[in-house]
Amino acid sequence: MSIFELIHEDAGSAARRGRLNLTHGSVETPAFMPVATHGSIKGLTPPQIRETGAQMILSNAYHLWLRPGCDVVETAGGLHRFMGWDGPILTDSGGYQIFSLAALARVTDDGVTFRSHIDGSAHALTPEDVIRAQERLGPDVAMILDECPPGDADRATVTAATERTAQWARRAAAARRRGDQAVFGIIQGGTHLDLRLESVRTIVDIGFDGYALGGLSVGEPRPDTWRVASATAPHLPRNQPRYFMGAGTPRDIIELVGGGIDLFDCVLPTRLARNGTLFTSQGSVVIRHAAHVADPRPLDPECGCYTCTHFSRAYLRHLVMAREPLAVTLNTLHNVTYYQNLMARIREAITNDRFADLASTVTTTSLGEEGASCPA
Amino acid sequence: MSIFELIHEDAGSAARRGRLNLTHGSVETPAFMPVATHGSIKGLTPPQIRETGAQMILSNAYHLWLRPGCDVVETAGGLHRFMGWDGPILTDSGGYQIFSLAALARVTDDGVTFRSHIDGSAHALTPEDVIRAQERLGPDVAMILDECPPGDADRATVTAATERTAQWARRAAAARRRGDQAVFGIIQGGTHLDLRLESVRTIVDIGFDGYALGGLSVGEPRPDTWRVASATAPHLPRNQPRYFMGAGTPRDIIELVGGGIDLFDCVLPTRLARNGTLFTSQGSVVIRHAAHVADPRPLDPECGCYTCTHFSRAYLRHLVMAREPLAVTLNTLHNVTYYQNLMARIREAITNDRFADLASTVTTTSLGEEGASCPA
Repeated sequence: MSIFELIHEDAGSAARRGRLNLTHGSVETPAFMPVATHGSIKGLTPPQIRETGAQMILSNAYHLWLRPGCDVVETAGGLHRFMGWDGPILTDSGGYQIFSLAALARVTDDGVTFRSHIDGSAHALTPEDVIRAQERLGPDVAMILDECPPGDADRATVTAATERTAQWARRAAAARRRGDQAVFGIIQGGTHLDLRLESVRTIVDIGFDGYALGGLSVGEPRPDTWRVASATAPHLPRNQPRYFMGAGTPRDIIELVGGGIDLFDCVLPTRLARNGTLFTSQGSVVIRHAAHVADPRPLDPECGCYTCTHFSRAYLRHLVMAREPLAVTLNTLHNVTYYQNLMARIREAITNDRFADLASTVTTTSLGEEGASCPA
Repeated sequence: MSIFELIHEDAGSAARRGRLNLTHGSVETPAFMPVATHGSIKGLTPPQIRETGAQMILSNAYHLWLRPGCDVVETAGGLHRFMGWDGPILTDSGGYQIFSLAALARVTDDGVTFRSHIDGSAHALTPEDVIRAQERLGPDVAMILDECPPGDADRATVTAATERTAQWARRAAAARRRGDQAVFGIIQGGTHLDLRLESVRTIVDIGFDGYALGGLSVGEPRPDTWRVASATAPHLPRNQPRYFMGAGTPRDIIELVGGGIDLFDCVLPTRLARNGTLFTSQGSVVIRHAAHVADPRPLDPECGCYTCTHFSRAYLRHLVMAREPLAVTLNTLHNVTYYQNLMARIREAITNDRFADLASTVTTTSLGEEGASCPA
């Protein structure tokens, strides 16, 4: 039985309204998962995460595996109990992080060896290890180990990574033991549409609970990202969820929802919040700017979040300038709420067959381009 | 009319139960004010501050005067509205900070000149300026400018500082304009009891809404701190509040309450929280210690705070090790709650004439000695 209910398809685009039914609850899609890399959304308690409207969060198996270790999380009763979040969680397998963060990452057909970015210790992970680790961590959705080549890799490298990802996917599928955990396969193929479609055939043939597009949003031009994703998504099973890994800006999300994607994650709203760059209905606000020094207005008068309903731009600027930890909390609360409000508007627009109208109001901003790549 | 109601005097000590009636509400005493130096308790939203049981907080006029500036806070409608805290606030005048943080502080009879610890800019403050600044910031209680000599100053230096503080106190009293703001005088005199009593006579003669002991907890041996405070407090007006500036450890608070002090502030619980040193009913816990790596127990099983009722020691340790901002929030929430619970127990013990029994259960810990000095 599919974990995904397809509720409505937009009349004017490939956008879909759906629902993910997971062990820890349901998620209305399209949905955006804020990122709790180490098992915490930076600066937010679980009730504050909930307050943003977030239904599901993403954590990272690679990071948790290194610290505090799967044994610690398992002993605590799993990631949900460890971090006090009782809603759905997806863990990224860490393939992308191993290739981008770890030192001396080396791939063999068996798996990957690397040195920890924290303490330099040597590690080896196979596709089976990665499934096993996530079964111990206990997220609602686990991701398979994939090989994620850089955005500027040549075709031969991408081809090899795509084939290896397929081999690993077979082993991952065979290694599954937990019946209460969904596992998503990952489609590779870079920006080569023929490789993408070949990857779709192979990975879907193995059979997973959902499918992710990996190896995009890794430095390639944004129009390529959108084009490849939108050309690939329709070839994925209609009654299963489609997840684009590591996107993105509001504009990315609009483009990708329009291409048929259901699920997103990105560090952008949380990371920009910590830098004091804030999304608003009137465009992005760099709260450090001197213009805000005595501004009594709320950050975004159209936002109903705790930050916007209780504090002025002047206070938010002061907290950032004085390096007060509360700045992280208030700014993150706002940016994540902004994303969740965007997703709610997207879902409503699809329901009413008016997605194109909404899409036309979300324009590309300089913010969007800077923040295009979304490493976790 | 006094802002202080004396509710009960302990039968076996000089400890007092009282109530401060201030513009933004009442405060049951003895009370501890957590420190919001820059207009924010580090990592806590106002509802979270309230959740700790804190009734009143302390902020620092010196810091706010430098950044964001009194004009910004005044434009925002005062410090309460600026920071979103609707309970009582006391602002320290910054005398202590000018002498300890600022560069090139120079005292003349007129006031003090110094360079900002933030940007090196030159500033001058008179006793009148300091009253005016706090009238613009708008706390419930303002402190006068005092000269605070270091703990190892010789008698001549202390004598001069005490006399100058008295002259400044006269000018501060004359400069008051706001009827809705209490102002506390500050008693100096170092550890010289005769100078302290002379200071009490002079400052009380000028007349303030409450009296603070300044220039203690600045490096002198703790027994001297307690002895001098306990010998001085009984000479202060019985029907007015007594505030010990910058203390302290739980043991300090017990000793000083027993000596007749009503009001306290200290950065200790918030600062130690950020370092991961946590107060519990079973002694202090350094949460970084490897012993806690997989410990499923709450930090303090006897504590009802959000942190202790929702998270394990293993998770708190993980947050600290991973430098997650949530560590600041959860640890601060706990340590401030610990202090507020201590104050609640103190108030109850006094009401029941059993303060000595309570005092005997709060022992000196190594934590207490390390953290003895309490700079804001």
